[in-house]
Amino acid sequence: MTSMKTSIPVSESVSSVDMEIGSSWTDSNTSISSTNSYEAMVKVIQTKPRFHSIKDAIHNKILNLRAEGRVDERSFYICDIGEIRRQLNLWKSELPFIKPYYAVKCNPNEEFIKNMISIEPEMGFDCASLAEIETILRINGFINRDNLIYANPIKPISQLRYANNNDVNLTTIDSIEEVEKIANFTDGKMKVLIRIQTDDSSATCPLSVKFGANLQYSEKIVEKCIQLGVQIRGVAFHVGSGFKDSNTLVKAVDDSYKLIEIIEKNQGNKCDIIDVGGGFSKESFKESAKILRQEMEFKFGKSISNGEIKVISELGRFLSASCFTLVSNVIGTREEIGGGKTRVYLNDGLYGNLNCILYDHQEVEPIVITSNGEYVYQESKSNDKKLYSIWGPTCDGLDCISKRVELNYDIKCGDFIGFENCGAYTNAAATKFNGFTNEFDYEFIES
Amino acid sequence: MTSMKTSIPVSESVSSVDMEIGSSWTDSNTSISSTNSYEAMVKVIQTKPRFHSIKDAIHNKILNLRAEGRVDERSFYICDIGEIRRQLNLWKSELPFIKPYYAVKCNPNEEFIKNMISIEPEMGFDCASLAEIETILRINGFINRDNLIYANPIKPISQLRYANNNDVNLTTIDSIEEVEKIANFTDGKMKVLIRIQTDDSSATCPLSVKFGANLQYSEKIVEKCIQLGVQIRGVAFHVGSGFKDSNTLVKAVDDSYKLIEIIEKNQGNKCDIIDVGGGFSKESFKESAKILRQEMEFKFGKSISNGEIKVISELGRFLSASCFTLVSNVIGTREEIGGGKTRVYLNDGLYGNLNCILYDHQEVEPIVITSNGEYVYQESKSNDKKLYSIWGPTCDGLDCISKRVELNYDIKCGDFIGFENCGAYTNAAATKFNGFTNEFDYEFIES
Repeated sequence: MTSMKTSIPVSESVSSVDMEIGSSWTDSNTSISSTNSYEAMVKVIQTKPRFHSIKDAIHNKILNLRAEGRVDERSFYICDIGEIRRQLNLWKSELPFIKPYYAVKCNPNEEFIKNMISIEPEMGFDCASLAEIETILRINGFINRDNLIYANPIKPISQLRYANNNDVNLTTIDSIEEVEKIANFTDGKMKVLIRIQTDDSSATCPLSVKFGANLQYSEKIVEKCIQLGVQIRGVAFHVGSGFKDSNTLVKAVDDSYKLIEIIEKNQGNKCDIIDVGGGFSKESFKESAKILRQEMEFKFGKSISNGEIKVISELGRFLSASCFTLVSNVIGTREEIGGGKTRVYLNDGLYGNLNCILYDHQEVEPIVITSNGEYVYQESKSNDKKLYSIWGPTCDGLDCISKRVELNYDIKCGDFIGFENCGAYTNAAATKFNGFTNEFDYEFIES
Repeated sequence: MTSMKTSIPVSESVSSVDMEIGSSWTDSNTSISSTNSYEAMVKVIQTKPRFHSIKDAIHNKILNLRAEGRVDERSFYICDIGEIRRQLNLWKSELPFIKPYYAVKCNPNEEFIKNMISIEPEMGFDCASLAEIETILRINGFINRDNLIYANPIKPISQLRYANNNDVNLTTIDSIEEVEKIANFTDGKMKVLIRIQTDDSSATCPLSVKFGANLQYSEKIVEKCIQLGVQIRGVAFHVGSGFKDSNTLVKAVDDSYKLIEIIEKNQGNKCDIIDVGGGFSKESFKESAKILRQEMEFKFGKSISNGEIKVISELGRFLSASCFTLVSNVIGTREEIGGGKTRVYLNDGLYGNLNCILYDHQEVEPIVITSNGEYVYQESKSNDKKLYSIWGPTCDGLDCISKRVELNYDIKCGDFIGFENCGAYTNAAATKFNGFTNEFDYEFIES
């Protein structure tokens, strides 16, 4: 590692950036072994006929559901593959030297993942469990194993062994006990990143309360790794999902630098990976990216430029949230006596896709898709305003999507309500509570 | 309906109560059509060899899991059938004139339901959806349809039709719009109970925020039912899951009485069902039962005694909570540097069975099952005390089961931690978040 500041080129044009940084992940170095399998998959994915606007796709889906008499059976999603492409390009334009590993936990829909691979053959994947590794290996068994990280600091022994047996040999740790586990239950090929604690008090979903070692404890982990022969490849951090204070990134990069110095001093082997985690949202991305880029340049510029250090990220929300629009059906309404709000009951709610309201602290905005059966999505709004409360289908009083929302249309049983930006931490944790389904329809479009 | 107070006999001995109340649901009037199917099922259920203590069953299961190398794969439940029997007997001893309808949503495990039917052939079931009706009909397609209620005030049209097509023709409503739905989409056989609003502000899980009509609005519903020819069979209420103020029962019974007077005056047909809902917990049951019994005697005593009115309840938590002990495996630990708490990570958590902490506001108490591999469940405790925090297996910081708990044993990776009284609103809403399973092992015992 060389600490001297070296500027990392950044450009709007992805291809020119690729040319400048030798170690860039965007070089098209798809491993030969994976080519055939990958090409076959891409062929399937790309020959599917697709709509090019979300509006047309929703309309078509509703017409089909009506024809099949299935309007109230389950919610459906429109997934815009164009948005994956745009988000990946946005990432590359701002942080071309950081390779994205998609955090499968965020939205494990397999067709979504296949489409992602068809856009980005060398896409990396952050898996939190055996089942997530299995999913990726099922989609592409020939995947270059460097593109997989088992990024859960605490791993059940059986799942750790599964990863090791399947040549997924990079994982995160944050405890001495996990070093012992790796030493005892793997074949010596499993390498680690030490996950350090960050100040994520500004994040919507803080993680450091559960994961991460401070510098003092990290030194003990380094000691234990050396003692038991577990090789440390670098450092990982995560500033929390939906973080708001980008300065926490500066501290995390600085701490990573300090720990890497300690590791290299003690271990002999050089560190070659830094995992900068995730938590980026589309809205604040450019600002966060700038801060992260500057600090990485300042601390690790030369090591990155000369290919000594590979930088990876764990992107969930950033890649998936804006790709998905959720559409659910109105299964009942109730006019409040004496006026006031009208209650609207949907076939989806806090136990279904909108568990994100409870688990992920998301606020969702209902959008009228049909009004009295008429398709009004993205039409100029009427002047009428009505007050609504929006509810899920279960018998639980907690199952409330919105206590009070003003909408410009009349809503009746049979109408459809949509929610945009619903691709992160939604279907991933949907339940079957009250006997409602947790399987949904997915339509893929490309805008 | 006759309002004159008539005492309803109550006794510890269930059989003597059965003899005294002609209309008691505990009369063994199993319908002939269901007998064969039922007997076959009971034979299967009852010939299974069973342990008679939870302690032995957990120990045996752990030994088996160790032998199979599956300790960390998934949590398991021990379900004590004896406890279903005891809870049903407790119910009968306090409220023999109220027939329990098990709220399937609370714990839809099919073997649990089968065992319940084997104990109580004329058990009623409260279904919240098509899938729950399907479950009961799959278990016993010949079930007497009087033993089923589709107790969700807002029903998707397709599911309402399914119920109607399968002769499940009693449902709850709380809106004029639902009356129209029933009139438009069923064949005239669907009968209704009007669900009235209650004061459930003391409940752990209040429901009236979402469901229930006040008296004034109920009158409009009655009008609409008469206008559209939808027959009202009575009134339903629910004072909220885990209610604490039993006096809300008094008000609910009084309101039911008032509404039944209005219905009978306007409709011509007499009301013959009162659904007193659920929300009872084992701890406060006797007190709540006494208040409910007294008020029901006071308002409906004669109508119940002479069989004019059937009283039903929707029991979930009361029947299932104490039947289940959950056992999960320690997949990792982390000693805090410099002493303090030890973190314990389990293979189950807030996205698994312990979603009840978030959705159902439950507080769970971890119990040490094994310590350093040694089976210590229900042993005299050691004097050592250690501070722990207990966590689930996902990468989410929210996935914390207990921030601080003092336990008398040392806990290491591979040990087991249990949670008693875990049968209500647990497995029913478990997710697969992070790729962890939402399928669990169930062992049935009879203590």
